[in-house]
Amino acid sequence: MSKYQQLKEEVFAANLELVNRKLVIYTWGNVSVIDRENGVIVIKPRGIEYHDLVADDMSVVDLDGNMVEGTLLPSVDLDIHIAIYKQFEGVKAIAHTHSTYATAFAQARRDIPCLGTTHADHFYGDIPCTRQLTPEEVAGDYEKEIGNVVVETFLERNLDPMQVFGVNVAGHGPFTWGSSAALAVENSVILEELSKMAILTKQINSSSPMLENYALDKHFLRKHGANSYFYQSK
Amino acid sequence: MSKYQQLKEEVFAANLELVNRKLVIYTWGNVSVIDRENGVIVIKPRGIEYHDLVADDMSVVDLDGNMVEGTLLPSVDLDIHIAIYKQFEGVKAIAHTHSTYATAFAQARRDIPCLGTTHADHFYGDIPCTRQLTPEEVAGDYEKEIGNVVVETFLERNLDPMQVFGVNVAGHGPFTWGSSAALAVENSVILEELSKMAILTKQINSSSPMLENYALDKHFLRKHGANSYFYQSK
Amino acid sequence: MSKYQQLKEEVFAANLELVNRKLVIYTWGNVSVIDRENGVIVIKPRGIEYHDLVADDMSVVDLDGNMVEGTLLPSVDLDIHIAIYKQFEGVKAIAHTHSTYATAFAQARRDIPCLGTTHADHFYGDIPCTRQLTPEEVAGDYEKEIGNVVVETFLERNLDPMQVFGVNVAGHGPFTWGSSAALAVENSVILEELSKMAILTKQINSSSPMLENYALDKHFLRKHGANSYFYQSK
Amino acid sequence: MSKYQQLKEEVFAANLELVNRKLVIYTWGNVSVIDRENGVIVIKPRGIEYHDLVADDMSVVDLDGNMVEGTLLPSVDLDIHIAIYKQFEGVKAIAHTHSTYATAFAQARRDIPCLGTTHADHFYGDIPCTRQLTPEEVAGDYEKEIGNVVVETFLERNLDPMQVFGVNVAGHGPFTWGSSAALAVENSVILEELSKMAILTKQINSSSPMLENYALDKHFLRKHGANSYFYQSK
Repeated sequence: MSKYQQLKEEVFAANLELVNRKLVIYTWGNVSVIDRENGVIVIKPRGIEYHDLVADDMSVVDLDGNMVEGTLLPSVDLDIHIAIYKQFEGVKAIAHTHSTYATAFAQARRDIPCLGTTHADHFYGDIPCTRQLTPEEVAGDYEKEIGNVVVETFLERNLDPMQVFGVNVAGHGPFTWGSSAALAVENSVILEELSKMAILTKQINSSSPMLENYALDKHFLRKHGANSYFYQSK
Repeated sequence: MSKYQQLKEEVFAANLELVNRKLVIYTWGNVSVIDRENGVIVIKPRGIEYHDLVADDMSVVDLDGNMVEGTLLPSVDLDIHIAIYKQFEGVKAIAHTHSTYATAFAQARRDIPCLGTTHADHFYGDIPCTRQLTPEEVAGDYEKEIGNVVVETFLERNLDPMQVFGVNVAGHGPFTWGSSAALAVENSVILEELSKMAILTKQINSSSPMLENYALDKHFLRKHGANSYFYQSK
Repeated sequence: MSKYQQLKEEVFAANLELVNRKLVIYTWGNVSVIDRENGVIVIKPRGIEYHDLVADDMSVVDLDGNMVEGTLLPSVDLDIHIAIYKQFEGVKAIAHTHSTYATAFAQARRDIPCLGTTHADHFYGDIPCTRQLTPEEVAGDYEKEIGNVVVETFLERNLDPMQVFGVNVAGHGPFTWGSSAALAVENSVILEELSKMAILTKQINSSSPMLENYALDKHFLRKHGANSYFYQSK
Repeated sequence: MSKYQQLKEEVFAANLELVNRKLVIYTWGNVSVIDRENGVIVIKPRGIEYHDLVADDMSVVDLDGNMVEGTLLPSVDLDIHIAIYKQFEGVKAIAHTHSTYATAFAQARRDIPCLGTTHADHFYGDIPCTRQLTPEEVAGDYEKEIGNVVVETFLERNLDPMQVFGVNVAGHGPFTWGSSAALAVENSVILEELSKMAILTKQINSSSPMLENYALDKHFLRKHGANSYFYQSK
């Protein structure tokens, strides 16, 4: 049995959860986890529908993208995952979808604004949309450049990936992360719901205010802060 | 067996109904009931997903929030429920959700307008959105202050909680109530549907009129008034 | 066994279909059929949820609304059904819902415009919205007056109920009809879909044109006209 | 057993998939495949609901529309399929739906704009909406003229049907195609999703830019081009 069997099961289950939550259809989307100790990433193989996969099909690669185990090529988005893992040390797992409402924000080239406490419970402020890649970046090592522009967005805006657990790639769609594959997917589900709420909120009142900073702090920190009291225990 | 076994079952079933009706995901939302004779409230425990719960896990607390039975901490929203129960004597059960369309109205800081008879059949007029809490209120006893602003909204607008069975907390989301946990949840379901209808109505015709008062009276009273004839018997 | 057993089964099945097609929740909506030979109407009883009903619970009444069979009071909307049956001789069955998109048009007090061939395949032109009832009409024999305003709408606009199989009551919601309970419900399903398409069409292009009359004629008549060729046989 | 048994099974399964993916209700929509070697088309019969069909009911006709096998008349849209098959040699199968969001674009008489990479992964640029048919065309050989206007649209705009796998007929709805019945249906599913994303994108930002051409090229070609690397192998 593979020494990465458990990670393969975790990644496989999380990929299926994307389908069950209706965030992806056909071959769209992918989930990975990183095992930093052993220097490997486990990720969905490219271009195969979810119902044709089993856990053993998950690709195991090293941090340079070389295959460590298995015979199926990893997701074409692998280099995006690698760039995020290398820069954001706290990230354990990444999910990518083309979910409808979040992708609409990516296409609109707009941040997903923090308009309420549902958002503040899960993401500490607006969820950024990257800049569009240049023709040179697209013509170059495309997927790696997407990863770079994600990192650039967090650095330039001074965002903490352990407080803002996702990003929209301009014109493309969302990537989210977390401390497990299941939580990375959960953040994709929530990002989609927040996107839908944001569109509707602006439709009701085009000048709806941003959630006040003191309310944002309260909600994010009562759940994620040092003195959180949202769960049974910390 | 707990003397509150039946209430626990009722509260548990109502919490699951929130999931089945697609009003909540993950740990979002909660339902409680009050036993005024014995001075206890039964409520969903905090921070646990619905499919990980059984009826026995429901928290039983007194009206000061002290635990009476069980080992799981009650919902972080308990103090909101307590404030509503203390002020609105007719309320037997309360449901809280982050349902998409109703929450959009909360984020837009707008009342849900009574635009048709579907609304009038269930809520006697607009469903109010509270004012936003002040920084001091948020920094203080936050959940209790949310409860206070709900009560303030009904008092200042002279609304009868036995005629308007719900409220939106500004920037947050809806609370609804009723004479049983099932009916509190039913009012959450209907509030969500009314919110969706209201958004669509304004999209078709931005100057759609409010339902005329004489039609509002007719519909609410034929169902809820002293001479109601909507049901088989009264 | 009741001589109306078959009609009761048909009405019961059609009422359940409203739930299965997600056009109604709780006690909302109702379906009836008329047996013109025997002068009776079979209709859902008032104020009871669908999953608590069996076929035998359907109410059988005469054209004055007197109960002929059964013990459960008929739908409070019975008099609306009676008014439509009395005036529109070709109508064999009626369905009433509060379906989301169609009701939004009722609340917006706007006709559902014929914007495409999907509409023209099923309804011969715009689906009318009645005028709002007056205070006197609401204070009087309310449900009968709703029926009257439906009839008035068709007469004043010179519409043929055998070509336009439904109407929206202003501020309230849709009634549809057909040659069987199943077809009355089918028209409710289609009306809802057409309403959703119409809202989206105007959202894409606020000056979207009405379907050209020659295309409306072609589509309605190839399916419903004397020389129809849409089905296997006529 | 019919020599077209396998094609009948393929067409039947693809028609059912339209229902399962919620792209059609009742008798709406149809799928066909062509066997160019034997000069026959297999297509859903007209005016029959999907759950009343079995694979053997599929109609087999020649390229002039004459019945080759079976007793059920082919879809009334057969001549549209024939016109597309005759002009676009690479097309192996065609699907037609009245799916909600795509049909809204047809009714709005607008192309479905390429606003993001999800679109570019599947369609090489905007999905065209035909011109409206003239009164003469509608009065003439209607369905054949619809086919002609589809062909005209691709010729006049110099579009390649092997790069843009679908079209919207003005005021009517979408037709998509592919190298198998399943892939034709898949393109209908994706067209619907792209239409929904496009509406939402414009709602967020009415001046959302078109996807840059260099990004369109990259995404379409990494999946469909000579040097594609999207799948496990080519």
